[in-house]
Amino acid sequence: MPSITLQHISTFRAWMQNHRLQAFIVPTTDPHASEYTPPYYASRQWLTGFSGSAGTAVITIEDSALWTDSRYFLAAEQELDGTGIQLMKEGIPGTPSIIQWLKETLNKGDRVGFDAHVNSHRLAEQLSRELSPFGIETCPCQDPFESLWTDRPSLPQQPITIHPIDYAGESSHSKLLRLRQLLKKHNASHILVSALDDIAWLLNLRGNDVECTPVFMAYCIIDEHTTLLCIDEQRLEPSVRQYLKQEGVSTVPYQEVTRILSQIPADATILLSENINEAIYSCLSAHILTGVSPIAAMKAIKNPTEIAGFRNAMERDGVALVKFLRWLLPAVEKGGQTEISVSRHLEQLRAAHPLYRGESFSSISAYKEHGAIVHYEATPETDAPLQPQGLLLMDTGAHYADGTTDITRTIALGEPTPHEKHIYTLVLKGHIALSRCRFPIGVSGTQLDMAARYAMWQEGLNYGHGTGHGVGSFLCVHEGPHQIRMNYIPAPITPGIIVTDEPGLYLKGEFGVRIENMLLCVPSLETSFGSFASFEPLTLCPIDLRPVDMSLLTHEEKEWINHYHSNVFHRLSPLLEDPEDKKWLEKATACIH
Amino acid sequence: MPSITLQHISTFRAWMQNHRLQAFIVPTTDPHASEYTPPYYASRQWLTGFSGSAGTAVITIEDSALWTDSRYFLAAEQELDGTGIQLMKEGIPGTPSIIQWLKETLNKGDRVGFDAHVNSHRLAEQLSRELSPFGIETCPCQDPFESLWTDRPSLPQQPITIHPIDYAGESSHSKLLRLRQLLKKHNASHILVSALDDIAWLLNLRGNDVECTPVFMAYCIIDEHTTLLCIDEQRLEPSVRQYLKQEGVSTVPYQEVTRILSQIPADATILLSENINEAIYSCLSAHILTGVSPIAAMKAIKNPTEIAGFRNAMERDGVALVKFLRWLLPAVEKGGQTEISVSRHLEQLRAAHPLYRGESFSSISAYKEHGAIVHYEATPETDAPLQPQGLLLMDTGAHYADGTTDITRTIALGEPTPHEKHIYTLVLKGHIALSRCRFPIGVSGTQLDMAARYAMWQEGLNYGHGTGHGVGSFLCVHEGPHQIRMNYIPAPITPGIIVTDEPGLYLKGEFGVRIENMLLCVPSLETSFGSFASFEPLTLCPIDLRPVDMSLLTHEEKEWINHYHSNVFHRLSPLLEDPEDKKWLEKATACIH
Repeated sequence: MPSITLQHISTFRAWMQNHRLQAFIVPTTDPHASEYTPPYYASRQWLTGFSGSAGTAVITIEDSALWTDSRYFLAAEQELDGTGIQLMKEGIPGTPSIIQWLKETLNKGDRVGFDAHVNSHRLAEQLSRELSPFGIETCPCQDPFESLWTDRPSLPQQPITIHPIDYAGESSHSKLLRLRQLLKKHNASHILVSALDDIAWLLNLRGNDVECTPVFMAYCIIDEHTTLLCIDEQRLEPSVRQYLKQEGVSTVPYQEVTRILSQIPADATILLSENINEAIYSCLSAHILTGVSPIAAMKAIKNPTEIAGFRNAMERDGVALVKFLRWLLPAVEKGGQTEISVSRHLEQLRAAHPLYRGESFSSISAYKEHGAIVHYEATPETDAPLQPQGLLLMDTGAHYADGTTDITRTIALGEPTPHEKHIYTLVLKGHIALSRCRFPIGVSGTQLDMAARYAMWQEGLNYGHGTGHGVGSFLCVHEGPHQIRMNYIPAPITPGIIVTDEPGLYLKGEFGVRIENMLLCVPSLETSFGSFASFEPLTLCPIDLRPVDMSLLTHEEKEWINHYHSNVFHRLSPLLEDPEDKKWLEKATACIH
Repeated sequence: MPSITLQHISTFRAWMQNHRLQAFIVPTTDPHASEYTPPYYASRQWLTGFSGSAGTAVITIEDSALWTDSRYFLAAEQELDGTGIQLMKEGIPGTPSIIQWLKETLNKGDRVGFDAHVNSHRLAEQLSRELSPFGIETCPCQDPFESLWTDRPSLPQQPITIHPIDYAGESSHSKLLRLRQLLKKHNASHILVSALDDIAWLLNLRGNDVECTPVFMAYCIIDEHTTLLCIDEQRLEPSVRQYLKQEGVSTVPYQEVTRILSQIPADATILLSENINEAIYSCLSAHILTGVSPIAAMKAIKNPTEIAGFRNAMERDGVALVKFLRWLLPAVEKGGQTEISVSRHLEQLRAAHPLYRGESFSSISAYKEHGAIVHYEATPETDAPLQPQGLLLMDTGAHYADGTTDITRTIALGEPTPHEKHIYTLVLKGHIALSRCRFPIGVSGTQLDMAARYAMWQEGLNYGHGTGHGVGSFLCVHEGPHQIRMNYIPAPITPGIIVTDEPGLYLKGEFGVRIENMLLCVPSLETSFGSFASFEPLTLCPIDLRPVDMSLLTHEEKEWINHYHSNVFHRLSPLLEDPEDKKWLEKATACIH
């Protein structure tokens, strides 16, 4: 592998020298600031050989470095070995920022290039502000990989489909009306919608451009009267063209976006996403307002049809999970199962339903010490055989036409040790404390986060990831703008939003525990002290109680478990045709004391 | 009263007309953005008759209005009655902002005046930005009350005293060294210290200019080599002059500050507080950096000497409180006690100690339904006679030469009702949950706040004030930059800071409950998951357990109470000379099961 990487880097450096660039920045995103991108945009991986889903490479004529976060330290160390690319561990004291490193590495008169389409205006501005005092020039460029990457995958070409109103619950026409009212409130004449899931939600369309994410490459430009979809028009079948026409949406080719934006008059005001790319930003002469997308906040509040869709999706997901869990222990006992084989089995059970549309993310099936690697993904090389002992952490999810699921269960494959029980119970206490809490409508996720951590913090334990994220309705499994996490995220937790509840604990070299349900925020109480909300668990699947140290649970926690399990049983049992499945579920959800 | 107010307003309007001003803004602060001000700056009270400690009056030729917060709605309604001044309730939907109101009330060509010394640059800029599009001019002025307010109190003239190193724990010289290092880090050549408590802390000086707050009117200008104290030099006795000289501090008259600042060269960079007044801001030609004062963060971390001082102060405060509490019930039983009389008795007990330096704030002694008024202050008119029934909420505090105290206890004067017990226990659960929590060093107070509210939120109850604030070392009883509250305050909770823990519940027309200790943040655990801190209660005073519904307490909560009470007993009992006091304390801190 390194020899190919060395060759790619050397080709790239020759290109840099031709363009008189002494450094080049290669991030991991697409023009839409997507978290996951179409394969076409995997140029950082092509260049460096590093396969992680996050990271930024910086190549100079002599040096090269790659910044990534703790999820990928191990993988990056292995994959970068022999490439000469230095690993820069983000979040570790002493790691320089990209800009600090550029200041130290480059000389006066040097030029730093970056593809303006896949780097944000914010970054471009920061580079220019911080490097120009050192006589270093920043040079927005076209995509260098167009010429260099000979076997580059093509841009996505699969057809776009309509997300039916029976699942969307609100017509695109109505969403556009609401959006135009918001534009007025912002004193904006135009908005450019650049986030792919915002476009899919707004137009009730779905695609398949990004693995596990039903979005499609497009921009959408909206003013008081027109809605312009910039898209590869060949991907629109006649029925979709007809549908768009009905909803009042015109189309132009994807590449036209900058030309059209550049024609918006200078006295207009256009709303842009705060992470808009530099190519878009720099083509505008209109007055620019940047901020959090108003569509993100609209999309976050699920309508009754979407909520019903989620409930239906959870029932069929729950049925698949019950069948899976009943099968799992005997199958492991019998032998021959591995991390990958069991997660494939679960996928097959889910895929049996006609509304199944694929995994909502790459499933995590992590046995014993693999469970301590937060974003472990089993490969044929690491795929551990399962034995009737230790903990198996499974974080999986599915897209159905009417809703998306995301669930983590940690399962004792044998008799858990007291240590495993202790850790598992602390995670469960955190999960319950968040799930059962009531709170004033509109608090931030930052305010709620402590509920999930209080018990483990008491023992000096913690987890480095967020506690919860939004989930799209047959859309991105990670959806904003709200989150529940330690750092400050101002977006309010308010009725209609969905958020995951997924505390965890990861003991390096030993095991990992995470317990995740999806929660729906619902109105709960009106008192003279204000309006309060609470959470309703959407996920329907028993929580393994064998690894629980019951002596650590309070009366209220046991009550929550009984109430949750009783609901799981009553919702799922009528859907289970096999009486053995029903019997298993009855046992798994039996009342505890 | 209204007739005097009407006369003042009419005099003021004549002045406005002479100065061709159609509106004038009168806030409640001094040039140092103080929360509480010297009486000299009480011009808003002189003008409007409203006595609250927060509020902004806006006078036009025809109209007038006063904005204040919920603490003062009741008092303002009464005090403004008959004055023609409209009460604007801040935080209530529909209340216009001052700027909105000005836009609606004034006409094109009108001029809005404000005293540039007591209004922030931020406000001045906002006024100008938002009103100029309407053709309304903003006019920074000199203080109009200098000529109008004939019996105005004089500026403070009492002598300044040295805060001894035995209590300060670090010399002013050393603090200045550390500050100069921070200036370099900020790339600033100068700093103007404008907050009065920052100056008092930095120079180890104390004054008596503001009720309950040992600060003095001054500015301090610091560059790499010089420290210039702008102060009424007549207030410096020879020993203090000598001391300042030793510490390398020069003095100039207070009024010289703008002249000196205006002479700082344009290529210098000066650090200013983000709420600096307009008069200071506009006199500068140097490059300006504004932000949270670096001194606030330095001052927040108490040094070992200051911590020892707090512990000593708490012991003698605790002794006074034990004597008070033992006396209280029999005294009430006997009859003739009122809200004011009992708080005077407590003050006398505290004042008996030679290091006592006065109340740290106006004490709150609020019986029954008065307890539900969060910032109730008993007056001779409201002073309720105490009976052997109901709850008495007492929020009091003292300055001692070596530390400042702030404590709230809610005391059952008779047999509490089940309802009182229920509410009291929810507050106590919140108090304990925050006090006993462990957390990663550096979290924000916003992250911890929920601990104090979880139990009451479950029942749809809440309180509108913050959960905790910093406390100065013989300085302001409200000290930043950290706070524990629902809205986002980024300042970290980190070892060495002191913060109050004061959840409450207020049932209008019934009673109020608040339980407050001061907590010291201490390092607690180092694990592979990071460095954790916890809180050590500094306050030493039994918590009344008669109003507790024991069935609502968990094992951990009872353990916390026993541990806290055992510590109170062991620290205070050796200091109690009267065996009856000791006997009382033993009973009040007896173990619960």
